Amino acid sequence: MQRRLVGIIGAAGYSGIEATRLVAGHRELELAFATSDRWQGEPLGARVGIGGSLRYSPLALSEELAGPCEAVLLATPATVSLSMAPRLRARGIKVIDLSGAFRLERADQYPEHYGFEHTSPQLLGEAVYGLPELGREGLRSASFVANPGCYATAVALPLAPLLRAGLIEPDGIIADAASGVTGAGRKVSEEFLFSEVAEDFKAYRVLRHQHTPEIVQTLAHVGGVTVGLTFTPHLLPIRRGILATIYARLKPGTPPMAAREALANAYAGESFVGVLGRPEEVSLRRVNGTNRCELGMADDGRGQLVITCALDNLLKGAAGQALQNLNLALGLPETTGLENLLGVRA
Amino acid sequence: MQRRLVGIIGAAGYSGIEATRLVAGHRELELAFATSDRWQGEPLGARVGIGGSLRYSPLALSEELAGPCEAVLLATPATVSLSMAPRLRARGIKVIDLSGAFRLERADQYPEHYGFEHTSPQLLGEAVYGLPELGREGLRSASFVANPGCYATAVALPLAPLLRAGLIEPDGIIADAASGVTGAGRKVSEEFLFSEVAEDFKAYRVLRHQHTPEIVQTLAHVGGVTVGLTFTPHLLPIRRGILATIYARLKPGTPPMAAREALANAYAGESFVGVLGRPEEVSLRRVNGTNRCELGMADDGRGQLVITCALDNLLKGAAGQALQNLNLALGLPETTGLENLLGVRA
Amino acid sequence: MQRRLVGIIGAAGYSGIEATRLVAGHRELELAFATSDRWQGEPLGARVGIGGSLRYSPLALSEELAGPCEAVLLATPATVSLSMAPRLRARGIKVIDLSGAFRLERADQYPEHYGFEHTSPQLLGEAVYGLPELGREGLRSASFVANPGCYATAVALPLAPLLRAGLIEPDGIIADAASGVTGAGRKVSEEFLFSEVAEDFKAYRVLRHQHTPEIVQTLAHVGGVTVGLTFTPHLLPIRRGILATIYARLKPGTPPMAAREALANAYAGESFVGVLGRPEEVSLRRVNGTNRCELGMADDGRGQLVITCALDNLLKGAAGQALQNLNLALGLPETTGLENLLGVRA
Amino acid sequence: MQRRLVGIIGAAGYSGIEATRLVAGHRELELAFATSDRWQGEPLGARVGIGGSLRYSPLALSEELAGPCEAVLLATPATVSLSMAPRLRARGIKVIDLSGAFRLERADQYPEHYGFEHTSPQLLGEAVYGLPELGREGLRSASFVANPGCYATAVALPLAPLLRAGLIEPDGIIADAASGVTGAGRKVSEEFLFSEVAEDFKAYRVLRHQHTPEIVQTLAHVGGVTVGLTFTPHLLPIRRGILATIYARLKPGTPPMAAREALANAYAGESFVGVLGRPEEVSLRRVNGTNRCELGMADDGRGQLVITCALDNLLKGAAGQALQNLNLALGLPETTGLENLLGVRA
Repeated sequence: MQRRLVGIIGAAGYSGIEATRLVAGHRELELAFATSDRWQGEPLGARVGIGGSLRYSPLALSEELAGPCEAVLLATPATVSLSMAPRLRARGIKVIDLSGAFRLERADQYPEHYGFEHTSPQLLGEAVYGLPELGREGLRSASFVANPGCYATAVALPLAPLLRAGLIEPDGIIADAASGVTGAGRKVSEEFLFSEVAEDFKAYRVLRHQHTPEIVQTLAHVGGVTVGLTFTPHLLPIRRGILATIYARLKPGTPPMAAREALANAYAGESFVGVLGRPEEVSLRRVNGTNRCELGMADDGRGQLVITCALDNLLKGAAGQALQNLNLALGLPETTGLENLLGVRA
Repeated sequence: MQRRLVGIIGAAGYSGIEATRLVAGHRELELAFATSDRWQGEPLGARVGIGGSLRYSPLALSEELAGPCEAVLLATPATVSLSMAPRLRARGIKVIDLSGAFRLERADQYPEHYGFEHTSPQLLGEAVYGLPELGREGLRSASFVANPGCYATAVALPLAPLLRAGLIEPDGIIADAASGVTGAGRKVSEEFLFSEVAEDFKAYRVLRHQHTPEIVQTLAHVGGVTVGLTFTPHLLPIRRGILATIYARLKPGTPPMAAREALANAYAGESFVGVLGRPEEVSLRRVNGTNRCELGMADDGRGQLVITCALDNLLKGAAGQALQNLNLALGLPETTGLENLLGVRA
Repeated sequence: MQRRLVGIIGAAGYSGIEATRLVAGHRELELAFATSDRWQGEPLGARVGIGGSLRYSPLALSEELAGPCEAVLLATPATVSLSMAPRLRARGIKVIDLSGAFRLERADQYPEHYGFEHTSPQLLGEAVYGLPELGREGLRSASFVANPGCYATAVALPLAPLLRAGLIEPDGIIADAASGVTGAGRKVSEEFLFSEVAEDFKAYRVLRHQHTPEIVQTLAHVGGVTVGLTFTPHLLPIRRGILATIYARLKPGTPPMAAREALANAYAGESFVGVLGRPEEVSLRRVNGTNRCELGMADDGRGQLVITCALDNLLKGAAGQALQNLNLALGLPETTGLENLLGVRA
Repeated sequence: MQRRLVGIIGAAGYSGIEATRLVAGHRELELAFATSDRWQGEPLGARVGIGGSLRYSPLALSEELAGPCEAVLLATPATVSLSMAPRLRARGIKVIDLSGAFRLERADQYPEHYGFEHTSPQLLGEAVYGLPELGREGLRSASFVANPGCYATAVALPLAPLLRAGLIEPDGIIADAASGVTGAGRKVSEEFLFSEVAEDFKAYRVLRHQHTPEIVQTLAHVGGVTVGLTFTPHLLPIRRGILATIYARLKPGTPPMAAREALANAYAGESFVGVLGRPEEVSLRRVNGTNRCELGMADDGRGQLVITCALDNLLKGAAGQALQNLNLALGLPETTGLENLLGVRA
């Protein structure tokens, strides 16, 4: 059987490492190349323990190396994806972009939220937002997928079914979330030094995180309404995992059981989303190392819901979800190559 | 100068250890005794590096040892405080109780929130709730102080000035908080094993934590209104510190600056509460090891406030605040013996 | 194809969990049962995310459930293995025992090192010590394997080739090692509470750890000499991984390169042992989550060697190595079912 | 009473922060200035919670600001100390240098161990090595003190009394040590990022750490013999603390009790060194946050000693010891200003 050629651009970042392992271990795919200035020249085996004799190539060769590929994963910063994606698309190569460069539909949101003018606004309409559990039709055979943000996945998955069914008030939603440090990538800056992060906990980018408009946009598509969302990320002194604790109000007269059932029904057939019972059952350790997102819900009997949602920011929040999207784009079963990431952890 | 005799009951718990150090190092006090079955017979110096030749006595001797004391700190579980406090009070000894046994005014709340019938309901009216920054008049020369819970302190301090001034809606308040593991005491149970807690993060006691009614009661006294509060505690994989992220809505027409000023004014003269700028400036590492509580606030321009509040759960959230209360009860300056815990950390 | 029936006894311990996942995901094996009083009645899927509809059975049913099995893994405390292994062997079931109950050849060493009289001394001669890289002949088709200790694996693998080749002095060997907390199992005792272990580091069982005689015995078989070994374990404030730093002296006149080559040659064809360059290249993060052991060596030019060795205590130090042994005992290729644990981590 | 003027140069590093707090809180000293480019212009109170209205000044003003001071602490990198110390000494200001720039007596060791040619070799003879417990005579009224390295303190303190008494073999000594990440300072490099350090453990600078010649030099002075020392530092995934595990051999015929007594006698009257019983009793958590060094010893009955030694790398390993030296240099009691750092922690 002929395996399909896929390349990874930006293979040395934390998400790129996971993506490299997943593609190299995928029985239907062949990892054609992996580019990284950081590790150029080194064999992949020495860094990710897989990949045979392949060596990391310099980033500057990415476009050329992508030539024979059917698809490419961009695990690059948004500014790099912004310039790389159009060139790859122009060559007819399918692109799964793990950055935020093509997630927002409106080009005019980029200066505020990403700090740059969008240079390919026409491509924003072409990119399909890749959250399969909220709608995988557009992703099948897709040519260009904007892979969702980690926080955006953790907040949109629990809220979408409730909004779609019109069970909760669209205003006054609070999403209070905490992420492990790999969420910031391998950025070398003082704020991410071990001695600065360890034994600490604090909020960051309060009321101005770039995933807020992404979540609002996703929920608008799903629920047909613009939500009022307050999102606060925090930095956890651990490496991996996101836990979001979400507060929403049931519409008057809505029984809490309806919310519970909406969540259960929405994800009943899903391989990568699990609806548990109470919020306390959800934890990072159960999902870290898997491509799984888990939810739990409680209500106070007076219409207030508290929902927790956990996922591994590098897998379901990045590279694992990218593989779901890649599988869909290539017409493969969505779980292919992710069979070892289905399970919970004890 | 004659130093005043003070004893510690329950001296081997994490709060008891801190309390022991603070009393033993306090220039106006003499640590008369410290009881702990766990460490009985051992010299205090071997455990807390202070205390001269004093040795831990068995818990059963507490009442007798307390005889000559002017005041006693109860760093015991609520059920122990429940039986010990009345006997100490009957002997005319001032009591600062660090447990929750006398914090709630209504005896009928105890079965639900603490799991026991209150056996001294008449004492509930006598106990003064010891949050000095929200009202220290009743604490001066007090005979019996119910020292606040750690979460309750972290949530009440930021909200009280806003409610008192009538600036925020009393309903729909969310307090999402996270605590280090010492908040659970030294309880030997599987859920607090290192290998279960490390690298994890999760919510616990969602919608049923016993500090919720304590906070509601405190805010009712201060603001004259019963708030609608949703409180969610989480367990952080670190030893110390609480960060609360609080969401409240300004009343229509209220400028955010009014909220900022209410906080600044409320705590302008306080030694142990600092009002910083934005919520991101507040962090556990700045307050851990101090008796300081720090606040930061942001608003979204549409009436939504996000306030963070941090403190060390064993100091401002327990033993440090108990020393403030002890000082007040004994007519001493409130910061005596806490001079080394005033500062921030870098 | 008929898959071979294997059972797990003691499936809820940290090693048992890993063993359960490995057997359940192994394409040649069928997990026939898993016993655990702790999780009895719960579906395996809810705990380890794999295992289909199988549920945990009570420990008391282990022997009966084992009846139809070709082999059983004992992931039980040594005292449980001591009574269980003879009964399983009497039924002709192959046993891989992850405890220390049958590792030492001399029954008279058990009282001192394990605190019990050995009740099946005749079985000690039957048990094959399962460190495949130091001799896998006896393990092929073995009926009873004593799976090595985690520290013993980390110390014996680097020393064995050097002793076998007669390159180092057998006396004065120092092994200074540190382990993550899962090495102690899920023992509920105060010393392993998060608030006691976190932010700390200390030695334990100095000069009296039960792996010392195990290492000495292994090296005697390999090198034909009784080594003088000082072994000091330390407790790391992390969950997983062992790093051993080993100090040995080259025999006079022996070039350091000979030692380096002995290590490289000994493990050249091995799937699960990697010989890196300098000791600094070896780290826990590279091996955790894999069944790999990695080594690095330096010398001071005056005959002193410093060797580091790292492995995941739950995989190469326990369940992963047990699967190597199980594969060998069943006549399967040694890496079967471990393909995902071959690689290094970045 | 006139307080004595002291300044801090390099006040924003982790050791500089501790030194700033200690000087500012010292009743006999007045903190005259603190320089730091990083925090210049900011009030000290905002960073270290002490220091009144003083603000950080730029490093370039250090020499000028030092003019009126009696003494200055250099908490600067070795290359900065190298140029700064001679100029301060030329003005007659006492200097306590926390860097390694003047610790080694032989200028020709600097290129190899510190990577620079020493530009003030004549000052090397003038600098007094500041390990008070091994000899404080030269430190009284000293004008220039080279404050010891953190590892050097942790290794020299346990070995010195044994060598001085001729109880152990000077050759074949192993010191295997592990340090928290603040030992590396606040260096912004990838290797010290939280996501690189957390959950890991590894050796570094094996056989080439710059504290090795410092330890050898110290022990030569004390014991009159050049020891053969193998020193291996490791990086612990915590912020603070050093634990050294030291292996030495008793000389033939020497009873272990003699070693124990030598340690006990050497430090019997010391405020900052505690000799405990077994090595397992020594731990980072007992000493972190104090200026205390604790030791424990065991022997194997065949002449092999295992000694553990713990200290807080920023206090007894840096700023706390610097204050001991500053007190001695100024003719003050050695514990002045360190009264709160005497005790152990539980």
